[in-house]
Amino acid sequence: MSIPGQLNPSPRVLLGPGPSDVHPRVLTAMATPLVGHLDPEFLVLMNETQDMLRQVFRTQNRLTFPVSGTGSAGMETCVVNLIEPGDRMVVCVNGVFGQRMTDVAQRAGPAVTTVERPWGEVFDLNQLREVLQRVRPKVLGIVHAETSTGAWQPLEGLGPLCHEFETLLLVDTVTSLAGVPVEVDAWEVDAVYSGTQKCLSCPPGLAPVSFSPRAVEAINRRKTKVQSWYLDMTMVQRYWGEERFYHHTAPITAIYALREALRLVLEEGLEVRFTRHLRNHQALKAGLAALGIGYAAAEGHQLPQLNAVRIPAGADDLTTRKRLLGEFGIEIGGGLGDFKGKVWRVGLMGHASRPNNVLLFLAALEQCLVAQGVKVPPGAGVAAANRVYAG
Amino acid sequence: MSIPGQLNPSPRVLLGPGPSDVHPRVLTAMATPLVGHLDPEFLVLMNETQDMLRQVFRTQNRLTFPVSGTGSAGMETCVVNLIEPGDRMVVCVNGVFGQRMTDVAQRAGPAVTTVERPWGEVFDLNQLREVLQRVRPKVLGIVHAETSTGAWQPLEGLGPLCHEFETLLLVDTVTSLAGVPVEVDAWEVDAVYSGTQKCLSCPPGLAPVSFSPRAVEAINRRKTKVQSWYLDMTMVQRYWGEERFYHHTAPITAIYALREALRLVLEEGLEVRFTRHLRNHQALKAGLAALGIGYAAAEGHQLPQLNAVRIPAGADDLTTRKRLLGEFGIEIGGGLGDFKGKVWRVGLMGHASRPNNVLLFLAALEQCLVAQGVKVPPGAGVAAANRVYAG
Repeated sequence: MSIPGQLNPSPRVLLGPGPSDVHPRVLTAMATPLVGHLDPEFLVLMNETQDMLRQVFRTQNRLTFPVSGTGSAGMETCVVNLIEPGDRMVVCVNGVFGQRMTDVAQRAGPAVTTVERPWGEVFDLNQLREVLQRVRPKVLGIVHAETSTGAWQPLEGLGPLCHEFETLLLVDTVTSLAGVPVEVDAWEVDAVYSGTQKCLSCPPGLAPVSFSPRAVEAINRRKTKVQSWYLDMTMVQRYWGEERFYHHTAPITAIYALREALRLVLEEGLEVRFTRHLRNHQALKAGLAALGIGYAAAEGHQLPQLNAVRIPAGADDLTTRKRLLGEFGIEIGGGLGDFKGKVWRVGLMGHASRPNNVLLFLAALEQCLVAQGVKVPPGAGVAAANRVYAG
Repeated sequence: MSIPGQLNPSPRVLLGPGPSDVHPRVLTAMATPLVGHLDPEFLVLMNETQDMLRQVFRTQNRLTFPVSGTGSAGMETCVVNLIEPGDRMVVCVNGVFGQRMTDVAQRAGPAVTTVERPWGEVFDLNQLREVLQRVRPKVLGIVHAETSTGAWQPLEGLGPLCHEFETLLLVDTVTSLAGVPVEVDAWEVDAVYSGTQKCLSCPPGLAPVSFSPRAVEAINRRKTKVQSWYLDMTMVQRYWGEERFYHHTAPITAIYALREALRLVLEEGLEVRFTRHLRNHQALKAGLAALGIGYAAAEGHQLPQLNAVRIPAGADDLTTRKRLLGEFGIEIGGGLGDFKGKVWRVGLMGHASRPNNVLLFLAALEQCLVAQGVKVPPGAGVAAANRVYAG
């Protein structure tokens, strides 16, 4: 028998694609002793969490709550509840998470049509109108913030377009929620999922979701049972709704954490938070440009919270990331799929989107690049970022 | 916009069917800042957690790890990975969780045969041999500790019996693991799932699972993709195995908690822990008997950690539970399904299995019963429990 030692992880600055650094108040909330999942006090905490989620999603949707799994469980929840064998679904693919949604959908039995854009680019309404017209799907799925490419998909107009064709609009907001505007009601989004470990700055483990009345109606009209018992909204909504009917034991502590994270978001204010994300992104971008580093996503469609940038000539992917982690405790992400070895992903998400992190990262990156013989103008990254902050 | 106040739940003594009281060291571990899910330090923590899980499951199974969901997600993981359309499965039903396994299995497409026993009773090998012979299923599923009835299913001999018929044995150990012996290898169990919020005394949110080499082989021989992407072992095992291939973001904090909870289990020692659970159960049982309260499960098959007892004449279910919670902060569980309104479920799980809780509960229950006009010999419950502790 062997028992490992006390938990003692090294301090990290989490600037990858998630998890992001968690606010100390959220960490403290997680040390709170538990109440039961049917305790009257817990039911109040659930209501409060749902109410705050509605504010952050900017929706009145009654069926808004956190699924008991990570963001990918949120994706699967939306897909398997909305579609059933015999249905048609369109998935927009311009990165890993569109690919994942395709895989999830194909396992649920419908005919899946994919529509593609090169990695780093986004879809326009004309392309989507064409596929809607041709396929007439029950559901169209699209990623708002493609974490693999840093591309920021515009969504204005897409909801009404889908509804012209009686198609439900499903949107992945895992990396966008609470970092850039997500307007569930104004955009007429029918189903949306997110994750807690990105711009909400909460540990991974929950997937906030929201379903429009139109989506709920579609779920209630299903001919077959949802293939996943665990993610079956027809049952889960009875626990998160007024009945409080037992389904599975809610992850109490994770909900404590989410509640505290949502309080922090609303205390700051959504608009202030979006502006903060944008400003730190602009500083980072200026700094990286000064070091000769450009973005993987198309200009005008770059996410402020997830900066996917091209690894500069002369720098080795792993060498750089290892040194950043080993010397400075800074985590950034490598590339996924087509972008493996070509792209770094620098997250400035939620609590981690701070000038301190931008300046430290630029300074540390300069040191790592110089150590590999990459020529960069000394101090130029930090200086460029500081000019943005001063401006 | 409205923002609720600071998290401030009332102190509770969690003596229900789960979640159980979490050890302070586990709560403290959850306040630890995060590292990334691919951080080399996290990979070590994953290995340590898997190694400790193997010790607690008493198995050498390589594929042993916590699924990123609650116990029910563990159930679904085992079922949907082992079976596919065209397969036959037998589920043993003598309570809510056998019923749930049936529902989960039916959604995965196989022919499901149920074999039943009255609630509170257990299955014997002869009954199961008959059904194995008749159905020749790919998988037989059975619940070790039926949380709805408090029945303790003996499992000795069942693995070899299943293997006679080339059937895989799937066992629900949600409420048994770390409370009573679970011998995955010695009993030849092929797939097993548990939950963290019972005798491991960790918050709900993870489902430890383990698959035998025979089960892994069956998974690798599948003709169809696993219907759940999120729970697909053919992919998840690449993250929890040597490749560390990204699948979904692991719930870092929940794994911190589980690791600490497992350390506590192994520091105490499994045998000592089982004896402790048994002793506190005996004291509780003696105390309840002195108050005229008997068990719902058959004599000789009563779980020490989950005491399902018949509500005595003259006592009202809700009145009693509300008073216990309101006056004393003590949570016990009501009955589920057939046992609703007829049974209380008193958990003495993990950290909550302590003489303090037994004595306090008996004393508080006496007060609640007397307040409703139920005649009980004053102090008899506590006195009877104390005699057990003195013996």
